[in-house]
Amino acid sequence: MTLLESIDDPARIRTMDEEQLAQLCTELRQYIIACCAENPGHIGASLGAVEIAVAIHHVFNTPEDKVVWDVGHQAYAHKILTGRREAFKQNRKYHGISGFPRRDESPYDAFGTGHSSTSISAALGLAVAAQLEGKKTHAIAVIGDGALSGGLAFEGINNAGSLNADLLVILNDNQISIDKNIGALHNYLLKVTTDRRYNQLKKSVWDRLGAGRLRHWLQKIVKTTKRNLTQADGETLSLFEALGFRYFGPVDGNDIGTMTYMLERLKEIPGPKLLHVITTKGKGYAPAEENQTVWHAPGTFDVETGRRTGKKSDKSKFQEVFGTTLLDLARNDARIVGITPAMASGCSMNILQQEMPDRVFDVGIAEQHAVTFSAGLAAGGMLPFCNIYSSFSQRAYDGIIHDVALQHLKVILCFDRGGLVGEDGATHHGAFDMAAYRSIPNLTVCAPLDEAQLRDMMYSATQPGYGATIIRYPRGYGKGTPWRDRPFSYIEPGTAVKLHEGEGVALLSIGAAGAMGEAAVEKASREHGIEVLHYDMRFLKPIDTAALEDACRRAKRIITLEDGARLGGLYSAVAEFIASRDLDCTLTGLGIPDRFIEQGTPAELYADCGYDTAGILEAILK
Amino acid sequence: MTLLESIDDPARIRTMDEEQLAQLCTELRQYIIACCAENPGHIGASLGAVEIAVAIHHVFNTPEDKVVWDVGHQAYAHKILTGRREAFKQNRKYHGISGFPRRDESPYDAFGTGHSSTSISAALGLAVAAQLEGKKTHAIAVIGDGALSGGLAFEGINNAGSLNADLLVILNDNQISIDKNIGALHNYLLKVTTDRRYNQLKKSVWDRLGAGRLRHWLQKIVKTTKRNLTQADGETLSLFEALGFRYFGPVDGNDIGTMTYMLERLKEIPGPKLLHVITTKGKGYAPAEENQTVWHAPGTFDVETGRRTGKKSDKSKFQEVFGTTLLDLARNDARIVGITPAMASGCSMNILQQEMPDRVFDVGIAEQHAVTFSAGLAAGGMLPFCNIYSSFSQRAYDGIIHDVALQHLKVILCFDRGGLVGEDGATHHGAFDMAAYRSIPNLTVCAPLDEAQLRDMMYSATQPGYGATIIRYPRGYGKGTPWRDRPFSYIEPGTAVKLHEGEGVALLSIGAAGAMGEAAVEKASREHGIEVLHYDMRFLKPIDTAALEDACRRAKRIITLEDGARLGGLYSAVAEFIASRDLDCTLTGLGIPDRFIEQGTPAELYADCGYDTAGILEAILK
Repeated sequence: MTLLESIDDPARIRTMDEEQLAQLCTELRQYIIACCAENPGHIGASLGAVEIAVAIHHVFNTPEDKVVWDVGHQAYAHKILTGRREAFKQNRKYHGISGFPRRDESPYDAFGTGHSSTSISAALGLAVAAQLEGKKTHAIAVIGDGALSGGLAFEGINNAGSLNADLLVILNDNQISIDKNIGALHNYLLKVTTDRRYNQLKKSVWDRLGAGRLRHWLQKIVKTTKRNLTQADGETLSLFEALGFRYFGPVDGNDIGTMTYMLERLKEIPGPKLLHVITTKGKGYAPAEENQTVWHAPGTFDVETGRRTGKKSDKSKFQEVFGTTLLDLARNDARIVGITPAMASGCSMNILQQEMPDRVFDVGIAEQHAVTFSAGLAAGGMLPFCNIYSSFSQRAYDGIIHDVALQHLKVILCFDRGGLVGEDGATHHGAFDMAAYRSIPNLTVCAPLDEAQLRDMMYSATQPGYGATIIRYPRGYGKGTPWRDRPFSYIEPGTAVKLHEGEGVALLSIGAAGAMGEAAVEKASREHGIEVLHYDMRFLKPIDTAALEDACRRAKRIITLEDGARLGGLYSAVAEFIASRDLDCTLTGLGIPDRFIEQGTPAELYADCGYDTAGILEAILK
Repeated sequence: MTLLESIDDPARIRTMDEEQLAQLCTELRQYIIACCAENPGHIGASLGAVEIAVAIHHVFNTPEDKVVWDVGHQAYAHKILTGRREAFKQNRKYHGISGFPRRDESPYDAFGTGHSSTSISAALGLAVAAQLEGKKTHAIAVIGDGALSGGLAFEGINNAGSLNADLLVILNDNQISIDKNIGALHNYLLKVTTDRRYNQLKKSVWDRLGAGRLRHWLQKIVKTTKRNLTQADGETLSLFEALGFRYFGPVDGNDIGTMTYMLERLKEIPGPKLLHVITTKGKGYAPAEENQTVWHAPGTFDVETGRRTGKKSDKSKFQEVFGTTLLDLARNDARIVGITPAMASGCSMNILQQEMPDRVFDVGIAEQHAVTFSAGLAAGGMLPFCNIYSSFSQRAYDGIIHDVALQHLKVILCFDRGGLVGEDGATHHGAFDMAAYRSIPNLTVCAPLDEAQLRDMMYSATQPGYGATIIRYPRGYGKGTPWRDRPFSYIEPGTAVKLHEGEGVALLSIGAAGAMGEAAVEKASREHGIEVLHYDMRFLKPIDTAALEDACRRAKRIITLEDGARLGGLYSAVAEFIASRDLDCTLTGLGIPDRFIEQGTPAELYADCGYDTAGILEAILK
């Protein structure tokens, strides 16, 4: 039995000595690597945070002491150590465990995460609650340097720094979130780390020693040195000190001895405090250390060779279409600039970035700023394409209303990962965007059926006739429509396209889910002799009322189809159309129902929600 | 003719000498005070920022150089100086000018504001756009110390501090936004100001001198001293320096000589820089200086005596009902805590704060944190009431989804100022909340008809049967229903109340707009003999389907009424109900149409949108 296999509960970790803890870290790494090789996950961040997780559970009395893992990518070791070692094999799978901490999964998950920068606010809430209840427990937020650039994290620090709650923030600084981190805060942390040549003595000495007295003695000396090195001592520390936190660090966050030592001491210090630890993303697995962006979430791989074994498709991803088209457009229009909140490679804006680095602005994890900054650029005469993942765009909701739509500023908002994203689950599905923005005046909201339509929508949005525009498309592969080097074709705003002629039943779809609709319509025709009138609506706003009139005239049963929340989306738009007229149609809405959808493959989730091809066909035949 | 009357354009200001500028500031103050005495506005912030506005237009080449006024409360002098002196008499009036900067009002309004903390991001966008176009213009953000606590401002600083754009941030530090500012950043600024005993020499010397050579000579000396005092020189400056800004200050922002001197010099310094100026809110009008919270927006007043002359009502404001009820509930339940993002007096949470200061958390202007912190408190066993103005809650949209609803955390979100707020106009109307949150699973969304219902909803939400709940109510007075010391009555979630019996036409209203509906129904009965079936729906989510069934059975014409965006709100909910069933009803939706609504009295705006009593009656009779 390995040490890891002996742990069903963190209580066991609290009895381990330093050597055992180091051994445990090694085993954890092997286990995470082995599991993620077969069942893909966010391996890089979690490998980097193994010692943080082990040290926390060694030093603190979890789950009475509360740990909040920002984003949650780094929490795999925590999950494995807290009763989910076996369950971890079903990580991110349909009916398996979530890839993120979740309150309903374990009492050790003090607060669910997924989106960035929430941990300080949440942990402060837990700390203040404990204080109000007279409990002497601890609250810990573990946050990456990337997540620290989100404004919410700053708001949390600003509030915590003036309250007297016992809050420990562990700043897990690896200088990378998915792409290299940027921004002034990043520069500051780098300067602190460089200036203070943080103490790596322990590790180098340690490696040359066996267990025993000498080692113990040296350990003591090193610790004393470290304490002197890691106390707040000057100007470079004053960013966090200025904000009311006691600052400690930087220390080697991949050294278990250092980590337990520091946490033991910090446990005794009241009030808000920040421990700055330096870790290596992908730590302990050479391929992951070498290419940290790719190994953020590499898919399946061969452990021995580091070769990634995920299937390749001959189709293009919507992301590639976005990135390539943006470059094509930018070559012909000097006003076009790209803005991304830390997702240059994820959304493929790096294609433009490589050719025109001065026209791409990676603003860090800062969706609010991304949008308001884009609005400023537009007010200054630029034509900004701001790409945000749909679920993260929820952070920028106010800016889209207040800075973009209200001012008629032509910002082209490209919402990547709209609809059900798959294995990342509830926090990451782009469910609510279409419903939310249909309510907002002055916006054009559209969603492409396929690759060629995405390309044409991006082009069209740059043309007169379009103001502030949201183009929303899913994660991953399109249906394979040729798009590359295709001449641009202008799409009139608010126009639908008829995909199939029919009577009696009409299918109104928007976005890439329409491809499942096409398959169902084709099947209804072939297998059941039912000809369904199928419109690809393309625009949620303005909506093509001529198409709706045609559908309602020719079909008594109308079915809407959208890869988004039914309530408020296309379903509502068509319902309003029908209910406000004297129409004798009955409406069925296919889309994301009024509940949060968990993780799984997109196919599993579409089926779960009843709008896979089979579900659509069933609705047609009903 | 006064100096002020001679200015139709800021070009004139650029030719003035310091004495004239000082005279202009005096005249501006008198003018602002005189206008605001008759036509209420945000007088306090604007009086404090007179010298900032004059100095900017004196030194910079507006409108080619761009100024973004954060929030915009402080921009009255700017408006008056940029061609809107006469128009200012119609400030905040229906069809008058907006109380905030607006791009469509003047080329001098480089970017529209209203919500806090956008100015740095927007000005950075303007600065980068100029840079990309090869222009040598300047971009200036004027931001209060309160607005600086918003995460968006931090995101802007973090990005700006690593770009090389010419951005000047003027930090207008008066230690108060509406209530006294709090938080670590506030403490930091106070410490900087105290430590460095910023130079007030100029003013005191100045006051004892007439114009002339001696004064000029002294002025020179003082300026030299000031330069030495105001350059970055040590540890206390390092917060902004750490974030890549050159820091200057603090200086007296109410001294026109100091301000023009500083801006002239800063104009020559490239890159991101911050000028910290200290001002007095209400400067130059004794009553406003003395009670800055009340004089943030005091209503009409008598200039001589400072007596506020606004009409009093014998009715209660919804705000008072909220504040009093919260205290009543908190007395009986130790889990109850209050959270406000800098609106303790505005929302009346100060009633609880006075009796139980430890159970109220004013987190500063930080709506995102307010919600996520509340979620943390709930996860720790507390029962938080988080009060946010509806339009500002747009900032917290993601937290409400991701931290509250998804986790089933019982946070009671009280959205104050829901619906059309009146004179603050487009940026401040609480138009989109009901539509936005109807799409989100796990939430209960309700809106009280009157004071008693608000009280009962707040009580009911604390009881089992309610999870995360949004209670949304308007600004200002209710209809006068007795509520004080009334015993609490539990309201079953998702239940409507029949207010009037009828057939043929049904009115389904939600929230306080229902009072206008009652008046119209009563008039239809009295004057036209039409008995309208009227349901007060109370809950948008879950919706009372029994009431809807009853209405659709008994009425062929259904009218929905809501003081919120029709698209996505009650109108959509009822449309879905009708369209998805075989019902022979026709729906008319009364509510905020699909456009941004400008400023005016609520009555004017209700009429504009067609849902004042006359509009409702018209819909009934149609």
